[in-house]
Amino acid sequence: MAQDQLRFEDIRRAQERISPFLHETPLEKSLYLSNDSQNVYLKLECQQPIRAFKIRGALNRILLLSEEERKEGVAAVSSGNHGIAVAYVTKLLGMKPATVIVPENTPQSKIEKIRYYGAEVLLMGSCFDEADALGMQYIREKGFRFIDGWDEDAAIYAGQGTVGLEILKQNPQIDTILAPVGGGGLCTGIAVAAKNINPKVRVIPLYSEACRAWPDSVRERKLYHEYPSEDSICEAMVGGIGKLAFEMRDWIDDALEVREEMIRRAMLHAVMQEKIVAEAAGAVPIAAMLQYGKHIPGKNIALVITGGNADNRILAEEFGKYHRS
Amino acid sequence: MAQDQLRFEDIRRAQERISPFLHETPLEKSLYLSNDSQNVYLKLECQQPIRAFKIRGALNRILLLSEEERKEGVAAVSSGNHGIAVAYVTKLLGMKPATVIVPENTPQSKIEKIRYYGAEVLLMGSCFDEADALGMQYIREKGFRFIDGWDEDAAIYAGQGTVGLEILKQNPQIDTILAPVGGGGLCTGIAVAAKNINPKVRVIPLYSEACRAWPDSVRERKLYHEYPSEDSICEAMVGGIGKLAFEMRDWIDDALEVREEMIRRAMLHAVMQEKIVAEAAGAVPIAAMLQYGKHIPGKNIALVITGGNADNRILAEEFGKYHRS
Repeated sequence: MAQDQLRFEDIRRAQERISPFLHETPLEKSLYLSNDSQNVYLKLECQQPIRAFKIRGALNRILLLSEEERKEGVAAVSSGNHGIAVAYVTKLLGMKPATVIVPENTPQSKIEKIRYYGAEVLLMGSCFDEADALGMQYIREKGFRFIDGWDEDAAIYAGQGTVGLEILKQNPQIDTILAPVGGGGLCTGIAVAAKNINPKVRVIPLYSEACRAWPDSVRERKLYHEYPSEDSICEAMVGGIGKLAFEMRDWIDDALEVREEMIRRAMLHAVMQEKIVAEAAGAVPIAAMLQYGKHIPGKNIALVITGGNADNRILAEEFGKYHRS
Repeated sequence: MAQDQLRFEDIRRAQERISPFLHETPLEKSLYLSNDSQNVYLKLECQQPIRAFKIRGALNRILLLSEEERKEGVAAVSSGNHGIAVAYVTKLLGMKPATVIVPENTPQSKIEKIRYYGAEVLLMGSCFDEADALGMQYIREKGFRFIDGWDEDAAIYAGQGTVGLEILKQNPQIDTILAPVGGGGLCTGIAVAAKNINPKVRVIPLYSEACRAWPDSVRERKLYHEYPSEDSICEAMVGGIGKLAFEMRDWIDDALEVREEMIRRAMLHAVMQEKIVAEAAGAVPIAAMLQYGKHIPGKNIALVITGGNADNRILAEEFGKYHRS
């Protein structure tokens, strides 16, 4: 067991390191999800400049590199928010442009967003696993510094954990935090941060019915580093879990399953009631409130709205159903 | 002429007064509206906790009241963001609940939002003008302190003007600011703030084709305190202009007209590209960029996205068109 690979102190230091570069995202009470026995708050990571919490880990990781390492150039394999985060941070810090490797089927809009922040985008392989294999080989050959988005880099976990620090600072009454679980870095970081401040805080990871990698890994005590998932609108939440998250799984409370249909409804709720744009994974904690309501434990509940890069096709479909109803 | 009724110093003091209670909203570069000769930034007032800049004026006005005046209780006539702002501020400051008078045809969702912040909502009259007449009489009878949202209270204008201070602080390169014009308080406040910092900054008010109250008042040098408007999706921008804004009109640059159809497209652009929710008036500066593009003067342009309380029916209609196309 390597329970000490991510320490509270790392997260506090990460906060000091990254805060000069970021706005503190609001923790806002939701009028619509609160009820007579629960105060429900939204931690609005969808308001980060890149519309995703992933900026925290990437920023902490890259700020920790030496001058020498930064000059080598950094690279990532990701078609999603981590790739955008690495590109954004290298531009923000005036570094040599990042290299971001994406699968060939990546939507043009995402490629453009990564390129906008100055990164070089390389298309490799027909799916993520192929891009990963080819990309890692390429990164080694070129001598780039690899920025791991989710698996085992404690500096990334520490950055994501600053979400937990901020929540407890913004409202020390919070007793329960709900967050989506993909690789597990966010939930692990939040748990270490929050439980070091108040050991009674629950950190409940939420997974889609389309991918049971987290609860299966925990129950079977077996690291599902890859996982055969069903179709999901939460592309950031399917597949296997991270090595460090698996090792530190005892920090995290029991997981809850969320239905895909409810996640769609939650995306519509976000726009129509809260007046925010949440991507599918970002809407998952709202979906959990809609699905479980008062069965969610806790009186003061924080929902981590992890990102805002919503798929417009899904929004159009859901608004279409609403419009016709 | 009472050009000195709103001084730069009032806006600076307003900023000191209100900033302990508010997050600073981001000024973010738009990837999608910038082009090779223009950097376009969004001032995200749609991320205020009540989803509207109106919180600034209401907060400044109410903080300026004496202990005695606050105890009398405050009241407003508004079915929109000003009513929500006054309710929110009284709750925030732990004051006696506000009284907000709204026309009888006000949507239930707005009434609920005002009530949520603890205010008493009274329905009077069949339209705003009737609500205004009956409401003012009621407020006088009860001895409440009236909080004027738009007409002639310099404390309200000073609060709104803090938007301009923040923009120039966040990016001193800004040379042009685009904002919707309703009563004119926001544009006046921004102009006094920005032009005292840099006299070369342009402040361009934007009006809907459905209501020419501002350009007509300016051209004819006649205060249209009421104005017969056509149907508009920007309910906050139709009707007459404010007395103080009219008196101080020389501070403001020439206005531009925006088409209603373009405002609808801008609301869709906000969600689909920028990943924010903008109400119709809040989307007007985006509409101006879509409509005029490089004909808008300036190299570093700030668009004031005044609010996020979008009408869900309009979003559903626009997403419906997109979905079918």
